[in-house]
Amino acid sequence: MAKRDVRIVEVGPRDGLQNEATPIPTAVKLGLIKALASAGLAEIEATSFVSPKWVPQLGDAAELWPQLPPGPAYWALVPNVRGLERALAVGVDGITLFTAASEAFTHRNINMTIQESLDAFSEVIGRFRATVRHGRVRAYISTAFECPYSGPIEPDAVVGVATGLLELGVDELSLGDTIGVAAPPEVAALTLAVLKVVGAEKLAYHFHDTRGTALANVATALAFGIRTFDSSAGGLGGCPYAPGAGGNLATEDLVYLLERSGYRTGVNQERLALATLPVLHALGRLPAAKAQIALLAGLPVDDA
Amino acid sequence: MAKRDVRIVEVGPRDGLQNEATPIPTAVKLGLIKALASAGLAEIEATSFVSPKWVPQLGDAAELWPQLPPGPAYWALVPNVRGLERALAVGVDGITLFTAASEAFTHRNINMTIQESLDAFSEVIGRFRATVRHGRVRAYISTAFECPYSGPIEPDAVVGVATGLLELGVDELSLGDTIGVAAPPEVAALTLAVLKVVGAEKLAYHFHDTRGTALANVATALAFGIRTFDSSAGGLGGCPYAPGAGGNLATEDLVYLLERSGYRTGVNQERLALATLPVLHALGRLPAAKAQIALLAGLPVDDA
Repeated sequence: MAKRDVRIVEVGPRDGLQNEATPIPTAVKLGLIKALASAGLAEIEATSFVSPKWVPQLGDAAELWPQLPPGPAYWALVPNVRGLERALAVGVDGITLFTAASEAFTHRNINMTIQESLDAFSEVIGRFRATVRHGRVRAYISTAFECPYSGPIEPDAVVGVATGLLELGVDELSLGDTIGVAAPPEVAALTLAVLKVVGAEKLAYHFHDTRGTALANVATALAFGIRTFDSSAGGLGGCPYAPGAGGNLATEDLVYLLERSGYRTGVNQERLALATLPVLHALGRLPAAKAQIALLAGLPVDDA
Repeated sequence: MAKRDVRIVEVGPRDGLQNEATPIPTAVKLGLIKALASAGLAEIEATSFVSPKWVPQLGDAAELWPQLPPGPAYWALVPNVRGLERALAVGVDGITLFTAASEAFTHRNINMTIQESLDAFSEVIGRFRATVRHGRVRAYISTAFECPYSGPIEPDAVVGVATGLLELGVDELSLGDTIGVAAPPEVAALTLAVLKVVGAEKLAYHFHDTRGTALANVATALAFGIRTFDSSAGGLGGCPYAPGAGGNLATEDLVYLLERSGYRTGVNQERLALATLPVLHALGRLPAAKAQIALLAGLPVDDA
């Protein structure tokens, strides 16, 4: 087992694929996950037990889960009790929950108030804990910096939601810059605020690279002791209409920054650079992660 | 005149275009420069008085220079005394010089030792100062972190070249991560070393975003008091063979990070996002700067 200084939660198979219209065969998804596991990624969010009506791309969750290759710890997104029951039926032992720091966003995205989402989680977590010994629960707090509908989010709002989730017994929080707007001073302010209610070991960041700031934000969070980051291999989950447009932080870029900064990730960068090529081909996309492109291109020399 | 907390030296018209095989008409270059000036960029490296034999794309330097729109301060790269004479003939009053911290790189790139390049600069700077009252001299030290031929570069090597250049009377140094490999801890180490021989007000960084780390490096340099950065509008100068591949740090991404972090740049982001579209069209390229794409796409919402 590789020694790791930083935990990476690979979200490409779930967060990266969920908005893709092109159906990806289960075998291709399994190939991606096997390649990611082979590259050394130790935690992978493999799918979501959301209703296939809402996310047809992940409708094969129950079929996929039993075939996952051994090695990594896997997470599955569970939106509600019905999803939990489907997840438990196939032996899921790590669940992720999704809420937000913005009332406007939870309303538009999951049609609940934040408090209603926490109440729903209470039942999900209760049933999960009653069924799965040593199960793990991870909660996303999205729009932790800014909401696309209501604007900037104060750190106190995030602290409030974090406190509610911790009272429900979640093991770990992942704060999301959902629309990819944050800059380092905001990351510093939010981290300081949230560390007052939870230890760094229970805190992760889920940065989006929509405006190129994700790695600057990672470097800032590292300086405050955060050691867990979510990312998506190949930058899967970027905006399909514009090549190079950033959505999720690319795992390749994250690993490069971490390793070059002296943090061990346990990830083999060459294997990682190749891992997404079949699924990118299936999607008709070219690689979009800068470190991946640089590595695949054989470290080109730029003369100025 | 806009109040600015950070100086941006826009290098797109020179560094961004110099390696492009598709000839860009002088009128299109002037259109780009006018649009950049109109967006608020106050310093622009407009061209190079290198031999047209070596860089045909910039062979129109003497024709371009007299037509530059008023407003910005302009820089021109001058490789040698012959180039200087061509530059002086059209009234250039800000010159940039190019050397490196790596012997292997200067040998391969300009066929000199580092000391020979400094000796050549001595003559160039002497003639320039004798001719131009209040002229400005800027020197690039490329491969300041790593050389593609000889590997990692120690900060002391950069300090040595910096000291030599300062003794020649250059006004400002720009340290280049030429192959885009640096991570924040290296930026911190190099900055601390170089600040022992030169004040922050005379020091700039020229980061490349080849592996996505440029803005993380900018944020680190800002923390050490550096307030001047080079960048290229639209990410011009990226690798043509791979969409999304990073070369120069994109000015759009730099401005976004700075403004969002509370530093005033004097740049209008909407105008900047549009400024490169004609030249990108002429090159057959799509926009590659993330902040530019995000802005042009109308701030798309990503739901996870």
